[in-house]
Amino acid sequence: MTISLRKARTIIRKTLEKGRGMELKPLSVVVLDAGGHVIAFEREDGAAPGRFAIAQGKAYGSVMLGMAGTAQMQRAEAQAYFMAAVNGVYGGQVVPVPGGILLRDRKGAVIGAVGVTGDTSDNDAVAGMTGVEGAGLTGEA
Amino acid sequence: MTISLRKARTIIRKTLEKGRGMELKPLSVVVLDAGGHVIAFEREDGAAPGRFAIAQGKAYGSVMLGMAGTAQMQRAEAQAYFMAAVNGVYGGQVVPVPGGILLRDRKGAVIGAVGVTGDTSDNDAVAGMTGVEGAGLTGEA
Amino acid sequence: MTISLRKARTIIRKTLEKGRGMELKPLSVVVLDAGGHVIAFEREDGAAPGRFAIAQGKAYGSVMLGMAGTAQMQRAEAQAYFMAAVNGVYGGQVVPVPGGILLRDRKGAVIGAVGVTGDTSDNDAVAGMTGVEGAGLTGEA
Amino acid sequence: MTISLRKARTIIRKTLEKGRGMELKPLSVVVLDAGGHVIAFEREDGAAPGRFAIAQGKAYGSVMLGMAGTAQMQRAEAQAYFMAAVNGVYGGQVVPVPGGILLRDRKGAVIGAVGVTGDTSDNDAVAGMTGVEGAGLTGEA
Repeated sequence: MTISLRKARTIIRKTLEKGRGMELKPLSVVVLDAGGHVIAFEREDGAAPGRFAIAQGKAYGSVMLGMAGTAQMQRAEAQAYFMAAVNGVYGGQVVPVPGGILLRDRKGAVIGAVGVTGDTSDNDAVAGMTGVEGAGLTGEA
Repeated sequence: MTISLRKARTIIRKTLEKGRGMELKPLSVVVLDAGGHVIAFEREDGAAPGRFAIAQGKAYGSVMLGMAGTAQMQRAEAQAYFMAAVNGVYGGQVVPVPGGILLRDRKGAVIGAVGVTGDTSDNDAVAGMTGVEGAGLTGEA
Repeated sequence: MTISLRKARTIIRKTLEKGRGMELKPLSVVVLDAGGHVIAFEREDGAAPGRFAIAQGKAYGSVMLGMAGTAQMQRAEAQAYFMAAVNGVYGGQVVPVPGGILLRDRKGAVIGAVGVTGDTSDNDAVAGMTGVEGAGLTGEA
Repeated sequence: MTISLRKARTIIRKTLEKGRGMELKPLSVVVLDAGGHVIAFEREDGAAPGRFAIAQGKAYGSVMLGMAGTAQMQRAEAQAYFMAAVNGVYGGQVVPVPGGILLRDRKGAVIGAVGVTGDTSDNDAVAGMTGVEGAGLTGEA
């Protein structure tokens, strides 16, 4: 199972809607495929210019490690040098905090990841999970 | 004048519509702001996974140099080592061929760029210009 | 459809067998998945130490661009600065010559790539295609 | 003494067998030569796509420093900035945790390294040591 552009758009739209509903700061949302490659991205007006890289880093680390943002954060807090080293091997593209959400198919296989950034990491994750579920997919934050 | 997310979405949607109308291969389209930072991106189903980097490279070179894809290509053909060097100073993020389109406001100031990739460079540029004009903006391919 | 480790081993084994049969220099063979990530690699005794990067570069460019080694070479010969720029956006990981082989499923979708290096590019491609076909897959060199 | 491809295959096969016997998560295993260059690699079905880089980082740091994963971890815990700096000088290719195993000849000279990743670092190391010993070599985890 792969994530279609249509599905990716739905994830982004519903994540941004949730952000508006929660009155979060402007959000940026990326959807990556199972190989960590960008399908779609949107940055809301008013967000800082560098948000693509943060969103991408949350999602990229998730899919490459098969570990969502919350689990990455726990590992980083227990063993900071390990996540620093992992970041090195992935070319500096890993941001190990909530807001990186794994997308799984019905058998549990990872089919991609979503990265959300703009508000607190926890709020980013809540908005993103709403987007994922609104698209009828299973997410792991 | 800045490019809103709404405008960026319109550029992408109309570029993709034009690509379908021309029966092009699956396209990928990025919209960057005046600082060369990503506002929005979409990759159509069936496109190769690495298309974000190509689209981004076409648009990034355009905005950073203030020179659209066609002009970059002419410079590359006349003086290949110069564009190779430019690519070096911009961290390898420049793809100097048509499909990189400058966005200008009414006074001619650069307000961002669009990058289109997937078919021939010339077709990419035609689809992208349709998207830009469909959003009521002035483009330079 | 994804490439199992078992399939990847078969591709490698049959590529190396063909190389022995053709009396080629020691070969190195990599199999990448649809996202450009390594599934398996082997370097024969006597091959130069840097062969992983060449094999990977042949296969990585193929899968990221959706364009096999022969087509990449033609593009590089027609427009050298374009392939140089593409190499830049992919972090220097593209080697645009024969020996990069796309793997397609029955519907034509790219499911991965093989990279072979060690002898002439053309011989590398012949050995690799034998490996791909020996594994019951469809290749494009 | 150098590690033949045949030996490398045996190390990988026996490491993966041990992983299955211990019911570990899908493993990825790399074997590097005395110069830190890849001889062979395999990633089991179901492993996350980014596992090559982690396995390679465990083994590369081991052979470049002449220090196995456990010793690297101790150094990282005592002096995190030192291992971060080491990572920098080696281009981000060092993952200083168990699962990086030095291979030594009978005189104690380093002849290569193995990197194992997929389960806990300690389990990775146990499986890898079984593979090394199963190939008749002396390992240091």
